Amino acid sequence: MVDRIQRYADLAVRIGANVGQGQLVEVRANIEHAELARATVAAAYRAGARYVQLNYSDDVARRTMIDLAPDEALSWSSPALLSFLEALEAEQGASINIVGDPDPNLFVGADQARLGRARPSDYRRLWLRLVAQRRVNWTIVACPTPGWARQIFGEPDLERLWQLVERCVRLDESDPVAAWEAHLERLGDMASLLNERAFDSLRYRGPGTDLMVGLMPSSRWHGGPSETSFGRRHVANMPTEEVFTAPDRRRAEGRIRSTRPLALNGSLVEGLELEFRQGRVVEVKADRGAGIVEAQLGIDPGAASLGEVALVDSRSRVGATGVTYFNTLYDENATSHIAFGAGFAFTVADPDEREEGVSRSAVHTDFMVGGPEVEIDGLTGTGQVIPILRDDVFQLS
Amino acid sequence: MVDRIQRYADLAVRIGANVGQGQLVEVRANIEHAELARATVAAAYRAGARYVQLNYSDDVARRTMIDLAPDEALSWSSPALLSFLEALEAEQGASINIVGDPDPNLFVGADQARLGRARPSDYRRLWLRLVAQRRVNWTIVACPTPGWARQIFGEPDLERLWQLVERCVRLDESDPVAAWEAHLERLGDMASLLNERAFDSLRYRGPGTDLMVGLMPSSRWHGGPSETSFGRRHVANMPTEEVFTAPDRRRAEGRIRSTRPLALNGSLVEGLELEFRQGRVVEVKADRGAGIVEAQLGIDPGAASLGEVALVDSRSRVGATGVTYFNTLYDENATSHIAFGAGFAFTVADPDEREEGVSRSAVHTDFMVGGPEVEIDGLTGTGQVIPILRDDVFQLS
Repeated sequence: MVDRIQRYADLAVRIGANVGQGQLVEVRANIEHAELARATVAAAYRAGARYVQLNYSDDVARRTMIDLAPDEALSWSSPALLSFLEALEAEQGASINIVGDPDPNLFVGADQARLGRARPSDYRRLWLRLVAQRRVNWTIVACPTPGWARQIFGEPDLERLWQLVERCVRLDESDPVAAWEAHLERLGDMASLLNERAFDSLRYRGPGTDLMVGLMPSSRWHGGPSETSFGRRHVANMPTEEVFTAPDRRRAEGRIRSTRPLALNGSLVEGLELEFRQGRVVEVKADRGAGIVEAQLGIDPGAASLGEVALVDSRSRVGATGVTYFNTLYDENATSHIAFGAGFAFTVADPDEREEGVSRSAVHTDFMVGGPEVEIDGLTGTGQVIPILRDDVFQLS
Repeated sequence: MVDRIQRYADLAVRIGANVGQGQLVEVRANIEHAELARATVAAAYRAGARYVQLNYSDDVARRTMIDLAPDEALSWSSPALLSFLEALEAEQGASINIVGDPDPNLFVGADQARLGRARPSDYRRLWLRLVAQRRVNWTIVACPTPGWARQIFGEPDLERLWQLVERCVRLDESDPVAAWEAHLERLGDMASLLNERAFDSLRYRGPGTDLMVGLMPSSRWHGGPSETSFGRRHVANMPTEEVFTAPDRRRAEGRIRSTRPLALNGSLVEGLELEFRQGRVVEVKADRGAGIVEAQLGIDPGAASLGEVALVDSRSRVGATGVTYFNTLYDENATSHIAFGAGFAFTVADPDEREEGVSRSAVHTDFMVGGPEVEIDGLTGTGQVIPILRDDVFQLS
C-alpha cells in the first residue's frame, strides 16, 4: 500500500501538476486522505517545491456549518483561502487537489438550499479566474476511501476501488509516463479534428434531450495537456478523457437530460433535466436534488448559462470500467458532459468574443449528458450537419 | 465518549475562549484531534460564532518538511496563516488551539538544528503580539491521543489519559463552571498578594540552580482569567494553575536547571541547564536536545532573554496527579516555570518599562524549573528576602 500510494503521489506531482523547481505548492485534501496527502507533500518537495501548503478540509465540520452557521457564513471566503490563492498566482505556483467523498451519507437530510449555497464564493471565483487565465499548474486526483467504495459497490471494497483508480490513471501500466504521453497525444488529435471543422454549434439528441448549443467563431477545443500562461505543461484532471471548449453563453435552446447521477456539494442529484432559452436555464427538474441545483443557479447571474461543453468517447478508460463513480472527476470522464456556470476564457481566442460570450460565475458544475443513446452533431455555419458521436464512437477523422 | 467530547468542547468554547455572539473563530488542531475539533466547531456555532475556521495541521507532513524542504521553507509563514490572524485581530475574534502530540516518536532522528528552526517566524511573531496586546479571546486545550498516552504511560492507555485530563480541567466536577470560577478566583488572589509586595526581583535556589531574575517596578502578576483589550474575559490555558509576569529582559544572572523534561517542536529536551549573564543565555547544556534549544535561541536577538516567570504551587491539580505529561500546557501547570523569548507586554503597566524591558521575539519557550527542592524568594528594593515558595507551598498571605 505504501508503494501504491507513493507511485500515485509521484504521478500527481510529476505528470499532473508537473511541480517545478522552486515552486510554491498547495495540496488540498480531506483529512481522510491524509496518507496520500502526506505522500504528495513528500513528492512535491522531492520535485523541488520551495514550500508545500497542506490545506485540509473536513466534511463533518462542513455539515456542521450547513446545519448551524448563520446564513452569511455559507458563502463567506476566509482570508486564509483567498490570500493563499493570491500568493499562488503572484508566484506562479502549483496546486494539487485530492478529492474523494469520505462519507456518501454525510449530507443526507441537510437543508438543500443551504447546501447549494455552501461554497465560498469569492474563493471559487478567484480559483476559476486562475484556471481560466492559466495562472497555476494544477491537477485533481481522487483518493479511494472506504466511504466512496461503499457508495459505488454497496460495500467498502477499498481494494477494488484502488484497482479501478489505478486502471483509470494508468498506474496499471509498466510505464505510466509513456502511457500518459500516448494518451494525451490522442486527446490532442481529437481536439485538432474538431478545431479543423470550426463548428458553429453542437446539437444533442436523445431520450429527453434536444438541445442546440452555440459556439463562438474563435472557440477552440482543448484536450490532453494544459499549459499555464508562463509556459508550464500540466494535466489538470487525472483521469482526463475529454475534449472541451467554452460555448457562447447566449446561445443554448432546448432541453437536456442528465444520463448519470451527479454528486454535488456532498449530496446526490438524479434525473436532472434542464431547459434552456436564449442561453439561460429556465426550468430545473430532477428525480432528486433539484433544490441543490436551483440554489446554485441563484448564486449569481452567470450560473444559469453554459460554461463548458465536453466530449468523451467510448475509448475512455473510465467509461470502459462500466462503473458509476458518484464523483464528478470520474463520471465526467466516463461520458460527454456540459457545465453550467463559469467558462474557461482561455479556450476562446478572440478578446471580444471572450468578453461577451464566455460565462462568468462563482459556479462551475459539470453534469453528464453522454451515452450510446445520445447523438451529438456539429452544425456548420452553412447549415451542414456533421455527426461527431454515434453510439459513443468519435466520427471525425 | 461522544458526551465526554461534547462536554470538553463546550468547556473550551464557553469558559476557555468564551466565544461571543457574532465572533470570527479559529479552531486549530492536528488531524488526529478531529473528533474534538469537530465538536468544538459545533460548540462555537452554538455559542453564536459568525464563522469558524478549522485549521488542521499534520505533524507527519511537518516531519517531511523538516527532512526535505529547502532551508528557507522552515521558518516561512504562509500568507494563509498570516492573513487569517490579521482578520482575527481586525474583527476581535476568538481562537481555540487543540494540542496533544499524536506520535511522540515522530521527530526522532530529525536534524536538530532544522527542527529548532522549523517554526513560521512571522506568524509566531504576529500571534505573540496579539497575545501580548490582548487582541483575541483565546484558549489552549489538549486532546488525548493514543500516542500521547503511550508517551506518558508506556502504553496507549487512552482512557487513563482522558480521566487525568478531565480531572485537570475540572470536568470531573458536577458543576465544572462553578469549580472554574472558584479556582480562577484563588489564582487571582495569589497574583494580588504578589502584586502587593512589588518585588524587585526573584531568586531561585536548588540543585543546579542559583538564579536572580529582575522584575520591573510596573511588572504586574496575573493569574486566573485574562481579559482582551475589548473587554472580553477568557481563560487562556486549560488547565491553568499559574501566576505569571514578564521579567526585566536585561536582568537575569546565574544558572537554572530544568526539573522536568520539555517536549519541544515534537522532540524531547532533558536535563536542560541555562546560564544567564546580564539577562542573556550564555551557555546551554542538556542531557538531550541541547541543539534544539540552541537553534531556537539563534532565531532572533530576543530569544535568548527571559520573557516570563510563572509560579505554580502544590495545590495544582496537574502537579497533584504526579504525572509527567511531556506536554508544555500540562507540565508548565504542574510546577513553576520560566520562558525564554517573548514576554507578555500587557503584564507591564509603564509604557517605557514595557518598551525597554519586555523581551520581543518569535520564540516563547516555557520550561519547568519548580519542585519541592527549589526555593523561590522575592527580593524587595530595600534588600529584604521574602520566601514565596517552600516545598512548593505558597508562603504569602
